[in-house]
Amino acid sequence: MNTENVTKEESLDPEDWQLMRNLGHRMVDDMLTYLETVRDRHVWQPVPNEVKAFFRQPLPMEAQGAEHTYRDFLQYVLPHPMGNIHPRFWGWVIGTGTPLGMLADMLAAGMNPNVGGADHVANYVESQVLHWCKQMLAYPDEASGLLVSGGSMANLVGLTVARNTKAEFDLRQDGIYASDRKMTLYGSTETHSSVQKAVELLGLGGSAFRQVPVDKDFQIDLPELESTIARDRRGGCQPFCAVGNAGTVNTGAIDDLEALARICQRENMWFHVDGAFGALAGLSLELRPLVAGMEKADSLAFDLHKWMYMPYEVGCALVRHEEAHRKAFALTPDYLTHADRGLAGGKIWFSDYGVQLSRGFRALKVWMSIKEHGVQKYAKLIEQNVDQARYLAMLVEDAADLQLLAPVPLNIVCFRFIADRYDNDTLNEVNKELLIRLHESGIAAPSYTSINGNYALRVAITNHRSRRDDFELLVEEVVRLGNTLLDDARFCRRSPG
Amino acid sequence: MNTENVTKEESLDPEDWQLMRNLGHRMVDDMLTYLETVRDRHVWQPVPNEVKAFFRQPLPMEAQGAEHTYRDFLQYVLPHPMGNIHPRFWGWVIGTGTPLGMLADMLAAGMNPNVGGADHVANYVESQVLHWCKQMLAYPDEASGLLVSGGSMANLVGLTVARNTKAEFDLRQDGIYASDRKMTLYGSTETHSSVQKAVELLGLGGSAFRQVPVDKDFQIDLPELESTIARDRRGGCQPFCAVGNAGTVNTGAIDDLEALARICQRENMWFHVDGAFGALAGLSLELRPLVAGMEKADSLAFDLHKWMYMPYEVGCALVRHEEAHRKAFALTPDYLTHADRGLAGGKIWFSDYGVQLSRGFRALKVWMSIKEHGVQKYAKLIEQNVDQARYLAMLVEDAADLQLLAPVPLNIVCFRFIADRYDNDTLNEVNKELLIRLHESGIAAPSYTSINGNYALRVAITNHRSRRDDFELLVEEVVRLGNTLLDDARFCRRSPG
Repeated sequence: MNTENVTKEESLDPEDWQLMRNLGHRMVDDMLTYLETVRDRHVWQPVPNEVKAFFRQPLPMEAQGAEHTYRDFLQYVLPHPMGNIHPRFWGWVIGTGTPLGMLADMLAAGMNPNVGGADHVANYVESQVLHWCKQMLAYPDEASGLLVSGGSMANLVGLTVARNTKAEFDLRQDGIYASDRKMTLYGSTETHSSVQKAVELLGLGGSAFRQVPVDKDFQIDLPELESTIARDRRGGCQPFCAVGNAGTVNTGAIDDLEALARICQRENMWFHVDGAFGALAGLSLELRPLVAGMEKADSLAFDLHKWMYMPYEVGCALVRHEEAHRKAFALTPDYLTHADRGLAGGKIWFSDYGVQLSRGFRALKVWMSIKEHGVQKYAKLIEQNVDQARYLAMLVEDAADLQLLAPVPLNIVCFRFIADRYDNDTLNEVNKELLIRLHESGIAAPSYTSINGNYALRVAITNHRSRRDDFELLVEEVVRLGNTLLDDARFCRRSPG
Repeated sequence: MNTENVTKEESLDPEDWQLMRNLGHRMVDDMLTYLETVRDRHVWQPVPNEVKAFFRQPLPMEAQGAEHTYRDFLQYVLPHPMGNIHPRFWGWVIGTGTPLGMLADMLAAGMNPNVGGADHVANYVESQVLHWCKQMLAYPDEASGLLVSGGSMANLVGLTVARNTKAEFDLRQDGIYASDRKMTLYGSTETHSSVQKAVELLGLGGSAFRQVPVDKDFQIDLPELESTIARDRRGGCQPFCAVGNAGTVNTGAIDDLEALARICQRENMWFHVDGAFGALAGLSLELRPLVAGMEKADSLAFDLHKWMYMPYEVGCALVRHEEAHRKAFALTPDYLTHADRGLAGGKIWFSDYGVQLSRGFRALKVWMSIKEHGVQKYAKLIEQNVDQARYLAMLVEDAADLQLLAPVPLNIVCFRFIADRYDNDTLNEVNKELLIRLHESGIAAPSYTSINGNYALRVAITNHRSRRDDFELLVEEVVRLGNTLLDDARFCRRSPG
């Protein structure tokens, strides 16, 4: 009976491994050609309706096999990308990815370890990557760290440790109920929305996050910060944390991190730095002074899938105080007891430092990428992107039809098309339409934001494929599209003259 | 000047794409051979000290190139896996991965979209995958959903929506401070630690999570639950949520989900189901009755990287009430305003439904895997694993030296080696040492837990490569190792006789 059962048992492995190898080779060829030729294609095009319809097909009950599935991928998925691997994609703050980063994700998924802990190599790889990250950013080596899904999670980790450490009661056990003073934290109005999301998630309430005005350079107004803290203390709150921005999402502004570190020390507050992309400026000796003070942060959040150009998802949270970090998250039920020897041995249990218990091998692409290129190369490319931002700002300032809307301290340029005949409301609508047409043209993909009430075309350069001539083309196209819109009846009707 | 600058610009793309293609082919061949031959190797072996030393090398400043980096991977990383791709790995609850799942992660990393929103194909793929997940588990199609890093995050998403929806005030804005009653939630003592972690993170405090005793089958004791809720109401608390387990981590027990749904409805409480692996039993018509009532959950958390055998990381959170889900997370600052047309158009913005703003293309491996194999195949493999658990339980019961420690309702078997001469404390130590030696032998990798104070060898079968004869070998080895330990001086000294 038993032998019979064995022969009937099934698995998800292929019947013919050689066919799977051949398919894998085709995938490698197709994807590398796709990357090699990306410049020849549109940055982005709308997803056609027939493609959308294809993704409404019902749940497949029967197998269609690997070959057929890959054909569906080639026909329906691959041709309709977001565009962020293209040299002229500069929307939001989105990385580009690299060929070896792509292949590393395959290796990671093939080994498929759970990097939550236990004694196996992936934990040593991640541990080394964290040491490297600390070295890269001149952060203390005794700090603890964790690779996470991205900046949102890295901010959440840092702020959780801040909340639990600064609470004057056992917050993990008793909850916020045990607080007799409202715990408040501080950051500029330019702080990324993920900080607000984290504050809400942590049960502190969005109102606990005091958004302090910025100066003309979009840096946090320090006197205003200090008076807000003092007012809150008088009002019976417990100011417990300040968030410094190393590269705001709107304009790339960097707060005065040295000053924030001093204020936090004086006020007995946790100093968290959101350096999602800007922290990486620290790799460049030329740019490092911009983020001076970052190394004094109690916790530091940044992404490797943005300005280190790695494929999604990989961000990093570093915490200066290992014990505080562990105490905020560690939890060891019977079924997770660590052992002295065997598979459940090993000293590294990353699940004690964050939300995830099961964790993938995102460390591998970081490890391989840093070895492939060396850190100096990343520093050079970051400098190149900053240089391109300055170049674009210069082109904008030189163009009569364009207006720069904010300083360009790093890699983000906010500007708009202007024409004398329009009032500001109309200019906002014109630029909004202009951006959509630019997207639809497939030529370039900036995103947008609002700067002092002005609709801004926003170019954020975290792209290793961009070249100076790409920005020249962008400027030409914006001017051309803007002038086309001058003839658009919608906007003509509404001009003040 | 401009031309000169263009030629000096660098990128991270390879100088020779053909060399990268060749390297990619070798990687595909190596990894597929690695998977094809996995049965011939040890499940696990300790990481050698010289390998650990290698991972203490300093930050690479200079490029070492893709080839050399891959050689380091082959030499230092690949030979020291966790072991969970092996047919005899049954530790914790860890999936196996598949060849096409591995290749799909490469395709995803090559396209490298940010699946936070905007109008591009990856959002349609994830949307379809979520529809399929709902169909698979007979969950209402109008529910909202999100692919997440895993069960911990899926539980966090569900409990966040529960907390914010059931709060009788604006919790996002005002925080838990605004509560005049302690918000309490309920689950059995067998509930996974990630629920406690979520409760702590949400600021409710671990003490808000009332752990209700279980009956002899490790299911939540319903009368005890009801009296705890009543006592809390009398004590001025607001019972707001109950967590039902569809497959506990210790024994695979499934709470009476129908009864929990009724109690939640009557008590105006949110019903969350943690179905990390057990929810997938719903795929099988034979096993579906075990999880009856799951489809009534207000939120449902489960993993695809466990009992759907997909590579890390992919879990799923489903929420019955789309608006409640969105209201718990949506946050749209200027730089994320959605547009009518263009790249920032599109109706699907997954970032409005969870913690992450940047999100990788984890949907692709799910989409390709389900198409490759069809859902019926997954149902068959899940049944096969349950059948193997029953078979192992039978082998244990037939062996004089072995003792089954808990019922086997699903895919988890807890047992131990026994010998008359030992008291219970010694048995615990013997079995602990036995498990370590079993790991070190490389023959099989169960994990462990504590069942009613007894150290248990714990076999959790979410492995598509396991066969019946693997469990026969396990039983043989446990008996052999146990008998070897009978002669171990450490344990002889401490026997009662």
